[in-house]
Amino acid sequence: MANIIVLHIAALPSVTIAIFAHGFENTTFMTFTIDASDDKSNARSGEIITDHGTIETPIFMPVGTAGTVKAVHQRELVDDIQAQIILGNTYHLFLRPGLDIIEKAGGLHKFIGWDKPILTDSGGYQVYSLAENRKIKEEGVHFQSHIDGTRHEFSPEGVIDIQRAIGGDIIMAFDECTPYPCEFEYAKNSLALTHRWLDRCISRFDQTSGNYNFTQTLFPIVQGSTYPDLRKESAEYIASKNREGNAIGGLSVGEPAEDMYAMTELVCGILPRDKPRYLMGVGTPENILQSIKLGVDMFDCVMPTRNARNGMLFTSEGIINIRNEKWKDDFSAIDANMEGYVDNFYSKAYLRHLIISKEILGAQIASIHNLSFYLWLMKESRKHIKIGDFTSWADLMIKKVSVRL
Amino acid sequence: MANIIVLHIAALPSVTIAIFAHGFENTTFMTFTIDASDDKSNARSGEIITDHGTIETPIFMPVGTAGTVKAVHQRELVDDIQAQIILGNTYHLFLRPGLDIIEKAGGLHKFIGWDKPILTDSGGYQVYSLAENRKIKEEGVHFQSHIDGTRHEFSPEGVIDIQRAIGGDIIMAFDECTPYPCEFEYAKNSLALTHRWLDRCISRFDQTSGNYNFTQTLFPIVQGSTYPDLRKESAEYIASKNREGNAIGGLSVGEPAEDMYAMTELVCGILPRDKPRYLMGVGTPENILQSIKLGVDMFDCVMPTRNARNGMLFTSEGIINIRNEKWKDDFSAIDANMEGYVDNFYSKAYLRHLIISKEILGAQIASIHNLSFYLWLMKESRKHIKIGDFTSWADLMIKKVSVRL
Repeated sequence: MANIIVLHIAALPSVTIAIFAHGFENTTFMTFTIDASDDKSNARSGEIITDHGTIETPIFMPVGTAGTVKAVHQRELVDDIQAQIILGNTYHLFLRPGLDIIEKAGGLHKFIGWDKPILTDSGGYQVYSLAENRKIKEEGVHFQSHIDGTRHEFSPEGVIDIQRAIGGDIIMAFDECTPYPCEFEYAKNSLALTHRWLDRCISRFDQTSGNYNFTQTLFPIVQGSTYPDLRKESAEYIASKNREGNAIGGLSVGEPAEDMYAMTELVCGILPRDKPRYLMGVGTPENILQSIKLGVDMFDCVMPTRNARNGMLFTSEGIINIRNEKWKDDFSAIDANMEGYVDNFYSKAYLRHLIISKEILGAQIASIHNLSFYLWLMKESRKHIKIGDFTSWADLMIKKVSVRL
Repeated sequence: MANIIVLHIAALPSVTIAIFAHGFENTTFMTFTIDASDDKSNARSGEIITDHGTIETPIFMPVGTAGTVKAVHQRELVDDIQAQIILGNTYHLFLRPGLDIIEKAGGLHKFIGWDKPILTDSGGYQVYSLAENRKIKEEGVHFQSHIDGTRHEFSPEGVIDIQRAIGGDIIMAFDECTPYPCEFEYAKNSLALTHRWLDRCISRFDQTSGNYNFTQTLFPIVQGSTYPDLRKESAEYIASKNREGNAIGGLSVGEPAEDMYAMTELVCGILPRDKPRYLMGVGTPENILQSIKLGVDMFDCVMPTRNARNGMLFTSEGIINIRNEKWKDDFSAIDANMEGYVDNFYSKAYLRHLIISKEILGAQIASIHNLSFYLWLMKESRKHIKIGDFTSWADLMIKKVSVRL
């Protein structure tokens, strides 16, 4: 069967050359095409093409930690939320169900029943969150499972192998995500380690191929805490690796929003314009709109789903705490501007009752709503970038979506 | 607007007389028509017509305790599970969200978004389960809320008023559900109280009308523990009230299955043949098939949903404990004989992973599966009663569905 190799010419982002090739595995590369750019900001819209289909950017990626976007059926991700790519967490999937099961299933896509793109993180962020139960060395990180206390090690090479076994379309380099605040010396040494680990990841990645019938791509991650010098050094190092996409990590970990934006702006100015930029773990609707202006293309965050389970709703008119007494007899739609099932079928009063009563359906409705809203916000962003009025629209939306109703 | 009054002629169950009448409220009665009877047992298939549509019998009614069938969206109840009627629990709904909210919404159907029939229980069963926190008197039952300790009273009249406010299509008389085992003297006195309470319920019901734009009907409940004399006395008393349907309570509370079947058989022999019979809180697939043979038409039970959340699946091939190691790499369908989304889309191995990982989606998938299976079993039962081979089919199914896989 003939596959198509698409060679992407960096200087002319909309020009691609297709060559027919034979063989199933790893014969195509991920491509990124920018189709519109905003005049007043660095926002751009485009398309990432993977073997599992196209991702329109800017995009938000729902987090499917353990192979499930919590409280959401796979068909709801497609039909209601219109997700184009979801995340899996290497740490969680490695521990449970474990690589043997995922490999026997034929990879994560088949195991969970998701045939659109998947991005897996490197496990670094989760491992560092274990605090007492992990130890960082040059070789890698030793840690204890939060589930059963068993001891494991993640090394740069091991994490590439694990992500080959899981089978995400986009996989991430193993990095150290520094906490906030972070001493300069620690951040500097950590960054050097992250860069050495990146070289080991790239080496392993380029010497191996995917375990399944599609191409994977490796994104390196810029670190450097909130220090401009370190961020600049890191962005230049990461850019020099010339991978198919690049990520910005170590932000949204407690620093002031202005620091996050400053670091993102600085890094986006250095990372190549013709490669997708992924700002990891961000954030609120406002954070995302501001970061799109700075040139970010991809986002992920647990906020829409985690907050949903606690009754916090992001809507086109502002933020709702559905547990608030004021919604108890409000029988209007959750968000009248949304077109999906949950927004048209269920009322605020009913959702409040479910959340207050700790009913599972409350988590289900709120999760679908919040994710639908995030994906709607991305669709509107792309539309307004293409129309040419993104900045004025985004400024208006930022005011709206930040209001507490 | 003209409504239709349907007068049901008991001696000729398939003959009905329709009279046009004017006015919105309480102008039609519930009808029950038997369309086939089994030669070798007392099984029968039929239809109950309510203002919210038709219920084909025998039927299983998913339990929607607090206005939600746990972990299941309303559209999934319709499309995937093919539920025809669901239950609401008066005790839970009374405490939360409370009658004011339900009334403002226009009744439970509108509050939760369910336009098919609803049956509400009388709250008695939940109140008695409170054990230490309730006191039974002639007037009614004093109890403390399990949520906040607030004190409340349920009386026969009050419970009718509450069920008028909630707005179920079928509402239940306030009874005392005796525990098992139960001393004869206690059961005898309790039964007399239940009968006195029934008269008060009927009196209140017949002096009031529905709060919303449809007719409600009141089912009395046979009690009498496992004492044939008491069950006979109760069934005769209940039959003499000539209501549109009758229920059998106080079973499936811990007694041996043979006692449950013996009491059900005895009672079904006395309750009028031309009225639907509802066996409350029953049960396993085997319990249900056996009871259909005895002449029961309606069932409810939390088992399919509660057990689903613990990873116990009822399938057409037998019972699965999905937590069992043996399913960890079984990528086959949950139940290949079922046609719905969850059975065709998700694998046993994936469901096992979700349940083991305590992921909400596990509860969602297992709940839809179990309820779909229960409703499928009812559909097959109706089909085989109509075909005429119900008894032999049921005996075969009982063996199959009781196997532990």
